[in-house]
Amino acid sequence: MQAAVLSNAKMETFEKLESAVRSYSRGWPTVFEKAKGYKIWDIDGKEYIDFFAGAGALNYGHNNDEMQEKLIEYIKNDGILHSLDMGTTPRKKFLEAFQEIILTPRNLDYKVMFPGPTGTNSVESALKIARKVTGRDTVISFTNAFHGMTIGSLSVTGNSFKRHGAGIPLHHSVSMPFDEYVEDQDSIAYIERFLEDSGSGVALPAAIILETVQGEGGINAARMEWLRKIERICRRFNILLIVDDVQAGCGRTGTFFSFEPAGINPDVVCLSKSIGGAGLPMALTLIKPEYDQWGPGEHNGTFRGNNLAFIAATEALNNWKSDTFSNEIKRKAALLKTRITEIIQAYPELKGEARGRGLMQGIATCGEGLASEICAESFKRGLIVETSGPKDEVVKFLPPLIIDEEGLKNGLSILEESINHVLSK
Amino acid sequence: MQAAVLSNAKMETFEKLESAVRSYSRGWPTVFEKAKGYKIWDIDGKEYIDFFAGAGALNYGHNNDEMQEKLIEYIKNDGILHSLDMGTTPRKKFLEAFQEIILTPRNLDYKVMFPGPTGTNSVESALKIARKVTGRDTVISFTNAFHGMTIGSLSVTGNSFKRHGAGIPLHHSVSMPFDEYVEDQDSIAYIERFLEDSGSGVALPAAIILETVQGEGGINAARMEWLRKIERICRRFNILLIVDDVQAGCGRTGTFFSFEPAGINPDVVCLSKSIGGAGLPMALTLIKPEYDQWGPGEHNGTFRGNNLAFIAATEALNNWKSDTFSNEIKRKAALLKTRITEIIQAYPELKGEARGRGLMQGIATCGEGLASEICAESFKRGLIVETSGPKDEVVKFLPPLIIDEEGLKNGLSILEESINHVLSK
Amino acid sequence: MQAAVLSNAKMETFEKLESAVRSYSRGWPTVFEKAKGYKIWDIDGKEYIDFFAGAGALNYGHNNDEMQEKLIEYIKNDGILHSLDMGTTPRKKFLEAFQEIILTPRNLDYKVMFPGPTGTNSVESALKIARKVTGRDTVISFTNAFHGMTIGSLSVTGNSFKRHGAGIPLHHSVSMPFDEYVEDQDSIAYIERFLEDSGSGVALPAAIILETVQGEGGINAARMEWLRKIERICRRFNILLIVDDVQAGCGRTGTFFSFEPAGINPDVVCLSKSIGGAGLPMALTLIKPEYDQWGPGEHNGTFRGNNLAFIAATEALNNWKSDTFSNEIKRKAALLKTRITEIIQAYPELKGEARGRGLMQGIATCGEGLASEICAESFKRGLIVETSGPKDEVVKFLPPLIIDEEGLKNGLSILEESINHVLSK
Amino acid sequence: MQAAVLSNAKMETFEKLESAVRSYSRGWPTVFEKAKGYKIWDIDGKEYIDFFAGAGALNYGHNNDEMQEKLIEYIKNDGILHSLDMGTTPRKKFLEAFQEIILTPRNLDYKVMFPGPTGTNSVESALKIARKVTGRDTVISFTNAFHGMTIGSLSVTGNSFKRHGAGIPLHHSVSMPFDEYVEDQDSIAYIERFLEDSGSGVALPAAIILETVQGEGGINAARMEWLRKIERICRRFNILLIVDDVQAGCGRTGTFFSFEPAGINPDVVCLSKSIGGAGLPMALTLIKPEYDQWGPGEHNGTFRGNNLAFIAATEALNNWKSDTFSNEIKRKAALLKTRITEIIQAYPELKGEARGRGLMQGIATCGEGLASEICAESFKRGLIVETSGPKDEVVKFLPPLIIDEEGLKNGLSILEESINHVLSK
Repeated sequence: MQAAVLSNAKMETFEKLESAVRSYSRGWPTVFEKAKGYKIWDIDGKEYIDFFAGAGALNYGHNNDEMQEKLIEYIKNDGILHSLDMGTTPRKKFLEAFQEIILTPRNLDYKVMFPGPTGTNSVESALKIARKVTGRDTVISFTNAFHGMTIGSLSVTGNSFKRHGAGIPLHHSVSMPFDEYVEDQDSIAYIERFLEDSGSGVALPAAIILETVQGEGGINAARMEWLRKIERICRRFNILLIVDDVQAGCGRTGTFFSFEPAGINPDVVCLSKSIGGAGLPMALTLIKPEYDQWGPGEHNGTFRGNNLAFIAATEALNNWKSDTFSNEIKRKAALLKTRITEIIQAYPELKGEARGRGLMQGIATCGEGLASEICAESFKRGLIVETSGPKDEVVKFLPPLIIDEEGLKNGLSILEESINHVLSK
Repeated sequence: MQAAVLSNAKMETFEKLESAVRSYSRGWPTVFEKAKGYKIWDIDGKEYIDFFAGAGALNYGHNNDEMQEKLIEYIKNDGILHSLDMGTTPRKKFLEAFQEIILTPRNLDYKVMFPGPTGTNSVESALKIARKVTGRDTVISFTNAFHGMTIGSLSVTGNSFKRHGAGIPLHHSVSMPFDEYVEDQDSIAYIERFLEDSGSGVALPAAIILETVQGEGGINAARMEWLRKIERICRRFNILLIVDDVQAGCGRTGTFFSFEPAGINPDVVCLSKSIGGAGLPMALTLIKPEYDQWGPGEHNGTFRGNNLAFIAATEALNNWKSDTFSNEIKRKAALLKTRITEIIQAYPELKGEARGRGLMQGIATCGEGLASEICAESFKRGLIVETSGPKDEVVKFLPPLIIDEEGLKNGLSILEESINHVLSK
Repeated sequence: MQAAVLSNAKMETFEKLESAVRSYSRGWPTVFEKAKGYKIWDIDGKEYIDFFAGAGALNYGHNNDEMQEKLIEYIKNDGILHSLDMGTTPRKKFLEAFQEIILTPRNLDYKVMFPGPTGTNSVESALKIARKVTGRDTVISFTNAFHGMTIGSLSVTGNSFKRHGAGIPLHHSVSMPFDEYVEDQDSIAYIERFLEDSGSGVALPAAIILETVQGEGGINAARMEWLRKIERICRRFNILLIVDDVQAGCGRTGTFFSFEPAGINPDVVCLSKSIGGAGLPMALTLIKPEYDQWGPGEHNGTFRGNNLAFIAATEALNNWKSDTFSNEIKRKAALLKTRITEIIQAYPELKGEARGRGLMQGIATCGEGLASEICAESFKRGLIVETSGPKDEVVKFLPPLIIDEEGLKNGLSILEESINHVLSK
Repeated sequence: MQAAVLSNAKMETFEKLESAVRSYSRGWPTVFEKAKGYKIWDIDGKEYIDFFAGAGALNYGHNNDEMQEKLIEYIKNDGILHSLDMGTTPRKKFLEAFQEIILTPRNLDYKVMFPGPTGTNSVESALKIARKVTGRDTVISFTNAFHGMTIGSLSVTGNSFKRHGAGIPLHHSVSMPFDEYVEDQDSIAYIERFLEDSGSGVALPAAIILETVQGEGGINAARMEWLRKIERICRRFNILLIVDDVQAGCGRTGTFFSFEPAGINPDVVCLSKSIGGAGLPMALTLIKPEYDQWGPGEHNGTFRGNNLAFIAATEALNNWKSDTFSNEIKRKAALLKTRITEIIQAYPELKGEARGRGLMQGIATCGEGLASEICAESFKRGLIVETSGPKDEVVKFLPPLIIDEEGLKNGLSILEESINHVLSK
């Protein structure tokens, strides 16, 4: 969201002491204090419906009762909080639960790497291992991709403002057109030609990295057919396929992994955000056993053993023991899609376009600054909702997956009122 | 520590399910379960004295009572766990306490940036802002520096195994000799000549980044005079001085910032590890106001709002309200230095060399693999202690700062017995 | 052409003393001794028709009488042979003739730079000045482009074998699809979308560099309409347009500059090869006055003052004083095109495709190694002709522009016999 | 030399039509027309003594009678002028003469590569082959090195003005201190420490590239002992030693190769400038047979077959058939050294320092702009002499090796008068 000029006494501490880099506290200029499920309250007691969910880090909602209990119990018992990559009981239990509940039922065979507790750390480790096992340096990424803010991840990120922030040229990556990027043009044909032709100027890459639904890039959902074609290209040219499921994974699109409906089998998968269950820092890199060619400690980091996160994460996995959770998401996703379509039709001035799938949807607008205005108005009316896209032109909906129908409807009503208000000005 | 070949049934889960990159669980092949203060216990109830402290992330010891209470209370009250960089009560309180307890009394004026919860994230942000404000791309780092594992930080890290892991050449950095790097040679003369001479092949850098005591690089402590000369070079050539205080900061060397005794005033400071108080992921980048030229969101990340960490961090700052804590560290540091010197003298076969300052000390050994053997033997005898240095040749002591004299003595006794045992083989 | 295994006593010196990098002396294993016009003779007195013309460096044929006279006279008079970029009489005369005969009549306004006597040197200087005046680092080049073998030029060259030879990753360039590169896809649409979208991952470039007819890349001639669209993109985004006319310039396609029929006005033009008139090393970089922002000596080189080349070059310019020379080329080009078409129709097994324009044409073949076989057979029968293209799949015709009809017909007869022979095997 | 503001009618063509990059025609603002031996005349008939020799490209003087005859004869006989890397008679003869006269008597075993006709081309090819055979990417170069202006060569060049001209950051190189670079510091100790220590941040390089006497960098002559130590380092770490003998080779320092007195045996040698005998563009890369691992055409270029240069080059080699030529150079070098020393003593205001060896000597001055003023004054008085060094602080003497005692003395008299004049102002 573009930085609003709103300011008030409440925010003085942040304005005075914090770096100018702060961003969300500008668009939502209040001090938040409490949260439960899909609701959040500020210090004035004002209630907000959360359609943002920590940018996808709170799929299971705020302060889930069971997680709270487990965390408190663990702390009370002097459980180890910090452990790097030492063996601990919570790490062991998480590994076993992840294998049993997630990997085995999906016929997926991955070694689990704890790369440091952030999404960008997972991406950096994925790029490293792909380069190591192939001996190649180039990585193909896509237009409007977002993979993180450290130099390795930034080099495969599309946004020019973020890239420019690096202060150095970013290399070893080639940006290819995402699905349906150029009107009436076939991105697959383009990619294949570049890879087939030894004179194309594009080296055979170590990996192709992609998000199945681009979150920051504007809620661009690739078609399943396109994902399968990309996988086929990877197999044909012996390129590793990395799916960055940091935002779209952990159920966001309806299945645990966002790529399940495509039936593809990535070589490396990056998970973070909601993998920690309660919003606590955690990340995983899943690597096919044949590619798990790391030397001990070749990639490391201090916070690979966030045991509180392991505990909440293990609790969260219970949601995936049956199909119920997944089916619920799909039902709510359909409801969301219907309402979005209605809103777009009701407000033709928006020139709105429905985007996304699962509970990762959005409305692309056309006017400069329009989406930001809608989000700012929504905030005033009690809805936390964010923009995305290269020009902040998309209103993005990422409600907690556990939101109930009422919450979803109420949130969308606030949104509609806000749109109405903004367009009436 | 070099990966030991030890293996046992307890470790089966990790061996089977976790990536080959795991490292500490090889050298300390057990499952840890509980910890308090400077002690830690595994699932068999075996007790260990902790001379490792989460690689410096647990300066305040494990499971401090006050922190536990505050964390539990916060969770019980549905406090917001995850908040990106939104305003929250714990973030506000931390900012105010940090200003009041740490910055103001030291006459330091910094804007506080939350760059993502890891040290490498702080370093990446420091490099970015230095490049942005100077418009230059090169950064001078030092031999045996360690700044992190993401590509930006890795490019200013010395270790060739880690660098090689990048899979790509690392650029925009120049490695200069750290204090006393080459025998009888003056690193300052060398650096100045390179910067003065327009034909030197070394571009005027955006920044010089350094650790005052190199932790991973072998517990190399720069002399205060050297630090002052480096600062003078920075001022003379308008180069930003970045101190990476991720490991040496937060009291590790006796003062809150490791550079305080030198009387220098860095332009940017990186903090992580123990800043989170209880070992929870957190990091800060401190930037002089005149250099805080970020655009909103120009560097961001999902886990910049780890409120549990803010709560423990704020509690931890209380230790710095008076000089008591600092004086205690210095007293124990002297004790540690004395015992290290005795051990070196008692075992001339070690060809030992005392390294470091504060509670960040070490014994450099000469034999290939000797330090690793000592650490492995210490583990068997109930002491957690790690190696560092380019050849893992240094036994490194990083006890929690809150360790009492008895704990320190007992740990050192185990160490001495282990040395004796290893040398007698 | 692929290295043939032919070898004989004549070649012993080269095989024994010269580096393995030698290439043409493998495909044409003889020692050449004499040349005149479009003919060349080896030490055995065998005559060859030259359809190669020094890879385009001998547009005016071998040993033009007037040039010979002028060169001899100059040497006899102790004229200065080597002069760096000092003022000399031949340099002065060349500058004046180039202005009067070439630039002024075409309404072109360029400052003339002598960048060192090779094409790659001209390209390197063009890239430097484009980066300097725009302050940007990226350059867009095209699939199957060839711009030279030094690192700067290689980074904008498409061929993977050549690029790989760099031994380092090549950066600061983005390879875009040349005209009609991917079947049924519009390269202009792709390029525009990448440049319009701030999330595309492609930075605004300093320059677009192109050959209007790609020589080494397979005799791919861009359509005039495509060239105009590229120029329009450059103007819209304030990108410099660099035309590398090293091979296609100096009349090769029928006009002095290859881009004249498109009516475009490049910001920088690279010339070499035939600019030296007689095959002597020389190169020019033409720069619009507003972009000629060099500091004195910012790009330099020892052989920028090859006065023998200036003399032959000035003599060669006389060909352009009227339209006669240009019209002759076009007439012969039409004849060449007709014969190529006939040959393709006569030999359907070739699956031949006619390529190119002017006296820069070729036949693309489909079989692996077929074009190389045809060239090898042609050599035996007295025709010097080369392959090009990423798989050496194109038989390339670059006869001297001064060739007469008889020479052209005889050469093509030898070619046809060679095709017939190869296909009959 | 700094660009002087002198201007006159004679120079109008250059000022109007040539690029601002022109440099020597600013410092020596006249039009040169004729030259013989060590003398050169401008269009006004003014005579100059040449202490510049085409920046070392005219070691054998201007317009040697025998070379003129051979060139004229070859042209008259329709000899092939341009031949890429095809076999030709002059190429064959040159290869044989170079083997017999230069390599064999010196017990040197090299394959001869023709890399394109310029020094930078030779350096680019040397870097490529070193990277290819070692599989490493870093190259160690030295402070104040000059290796050329194309991106590969520029990356191992020290001068910041030249480097900045690249417009992109230059990588894959590490600049180490040349012999006696930092007062009282031992550059060998530094280099060895960086290479021994796996934590130094400097990767094991593919090659070390050096000039034995740095020409552009200020006439810095390495001691023989230092060269031997560098060679020992190369052998110890399996690093290729590349000697760039473009300026210091071909007899400039008294022996054909400048490294002969050190008794070292480089793996790759770059030659250009005077290798062409008469100042015609030509270059060689000499590669030990075991490292000549090129694929055919992996490095190429249009002007690798400058047959006029081969003819003059072969003629020039005759000078090396006995010791006479070499002994003559040494005698004149001693004379030059004596006179330089006298001048320095006679003019203490210069704070002069004698530099260099052979006929590659200089006087380092201290005042800003002083050396440039001396050169400008010398030009007025009939002496062509140039500055070098990072601040143009050195007056550099590169007379043709064939100069006689009288010429040397007369030139030095003019120099002394010019110094006297400048200091008296």
